[in-house]
Amino acid sequence: MSFKVTILGSSGAMPAYGRHPSAQLVEIQNRYFMIDCGEAAQMQLMRLDVSYHRINHIFISHLHGDHYLGLMGLIFTMHLQRRTNDLHLYSHRGLDEIITTQLRYSQSSPSFRIIFHRLEKDERKIIFEDDAVTVETIPLRHKIRCSGFLFREKPKQKRIDKDKLPAGILIQQIASLKRGEDVLDENGNVKYKNEDHTLPARKSRSYAYCSDTAIQPTMVDQIKGIDLLYHEATFATDEESKANDTLHSTAAQAAIIAKMANVSKLLLGHFSARYKDLAPILEEAKPIFPNVQLALEGDEFTLQE
Amino acid sequence: MSFKVTILGSSGAMPAYGRHPSAQLVEIQNRYFMIDCGEAAQMQLMRLDVSYHRINHIFISHLHGDHYLGLMGLIFTMHLQRRTNDLHLYSHRGLDEIITTQLRYSQSSPSFRIIFHRLEKDERKIIFEDDAVTVETIPLRHKIRCSGFLFREKPKQKRIDKDKLPAGILIQQIASLKRGEDVLDENGNVKYKNEDHTLPARKSRSYAYCSDTAIQPTMVDQIKGIDLLYHEATFATDEESKANDTLHSTAAQAAIIAKMANVSKLLLGHFSARYKDLAPILEEAKPIFPNVQLALEGDEFTLQE
Repeated sequence: MSFKVTILGSSGAMPAYGRHPSAQLVEIQNRYFMIDCGEAAQMQLMRLDVSYHRINHIFISHLHGDHYLGLMGLIFTMHLQRRTNDLHLYSHRGLDEIITTQLRYSQSSPSFRIIFHRLEKDERKIIFEDDAVTVETIPLRHKIRCSGFLFREKPKQKRIDKDKLPAGILIQQIASLKRGEDVLDENGNVKYKNEDHTLPARKSRSYAYCSDTAIQPTMVDQIKGIDLLYHEATFATDEESKANDTLHSTAAQAAIIAKMANVSKLLLGHFSARYKDLAPILEEAKPIFPNVQLALEGDEFTLQE
Repeated sequence: MSFKVTILGSSGAMPAYGRHPSAQLVEIQNRYFMIDCGEAAQMQLMRLDVSYHRINHIFISHLHGDHYLGLMGLIFTMHLQRRTNDLHLYSHRGLDEIITTQLRYSQSSPSFRIIFHRLEKDERKIIFEDDAVTVETIPLRHKIRCSGFLFREKPKQKRIDKDKLPAGILIQQIASLKRGEDVLDENGNVKYKNEDHTLPARKSRSYAYCSDTAIQPTMVDQIKGIDLLYHEATFATDEESKANDTLHSTAAQAAIIAKMANVSKLLLGHFSARYKDLAPILEEAKPIFPNVQLALEGDEFTLQE
């Protein structure tokens, strides 16, 4: 089953060198989530031939322009294409006013419902949950209220070992086996012992998006052991004081967090316009956390089960 | 002296086939004006290597998203680059609220002053004037309040014929000749007859931007005889009823207006996403008004003096 992160934008506050502002698409088991929606995100979706019709949930980390200015254009396009599905928007306070003000002056009434979900400052909270996925906020440290997002698959059921499927087994009995239970006969005796007919559940995958933030060690216990961490690395260490002043991170700081949290893989993004060449960003992270990669426009990162 | 229109976006409401929403740069005698500012206009400026630092006046035709959604990103970028010049924004009611709401939630206080100028419905009015240029609104017919913009050079001074410049002529006397006056001696007699020392003034050039609008013959007398007309041509005639319903124009209608107004040249833009191939748009305009061209991303149109 799918778990894929597609990068639509890798740029920091200003677009530069063809890099676009922050936006990502996260596909988990055929659910499509968007994280941040910087300017021209809809053009990036079109360019990468990614369907935006199936996006029902958009998570906005914070209300700096490079993280949400593409949202209004995407909403207008969805409207023009006669979208009918509800669209859920998750954001700190203000996005509802920003969107509704613009709808009012354009005299537009979207063809679909927009449902605003307000995030709270410094809160860890599950803000989305269905039968397979949860999304949880990660408190970040930035100039304005800002949250990261932790996507987790829920624990999965055991898999039926098809080579060991008893003839005549009932659907309800298969469901019991998937839940990890033994199947009993009418006398209460074990008829099919679970471990004889099942394989272990596939692992539940996880992805955390942390941007924008100063280095924030309080997140470490929350993201401990996850599969994939996207952490902003606006600057290299030569600009560490600038990072401190603006509450951004260096690549080395991102790597330190990845190491402390013992994640499997680290992605770096949100690069300052001062860097044309991003090699120094990657190179300073590597010695601290070797399994690191730049997250650039069009890159796809698939997590294996 | 320069008079150049650069096309940043040729698309209608939805970006498509790499076409961007409406935005243009107009350079007149080293003044830089922007007309409309669709999403990703700042990226287009960067891509075309056009300086946006020198833009001091931005004219927004109306508050449909495809005409202004790039403005906030451009303002943030100007701020990040420590702009100090005032920025003048011309728009129908609402833009001030849209901008200030977003500045408030991002907790940003721009490094420069933003001065809002409100346009009024159905009004022809000079909204900008300096020693060389005027900009006048053109009432358009669209679903919401919408204005076109007419850029005119003011009448120019006569040119001194350098081959016929008398030895010892004073600067004040040259200024008199440029104004078209004869230069008199102390007795009130003609010393330098104007026509003996001057060449005719160069012509004053003019450009009108009309988008979005249904066919609007009331504009004809206002734009009579101008050098260059940009008129929206969202549809071809096969979609004329759609054009009527949405208060847009067909290419044929744009050509009719150009012909009625006897302009020198017509540019077509604001193309619907339903057209991948724009040839039919151009071809239907040509028989009506032959000096017509599509206005596509990156195209520059220079008016000769």
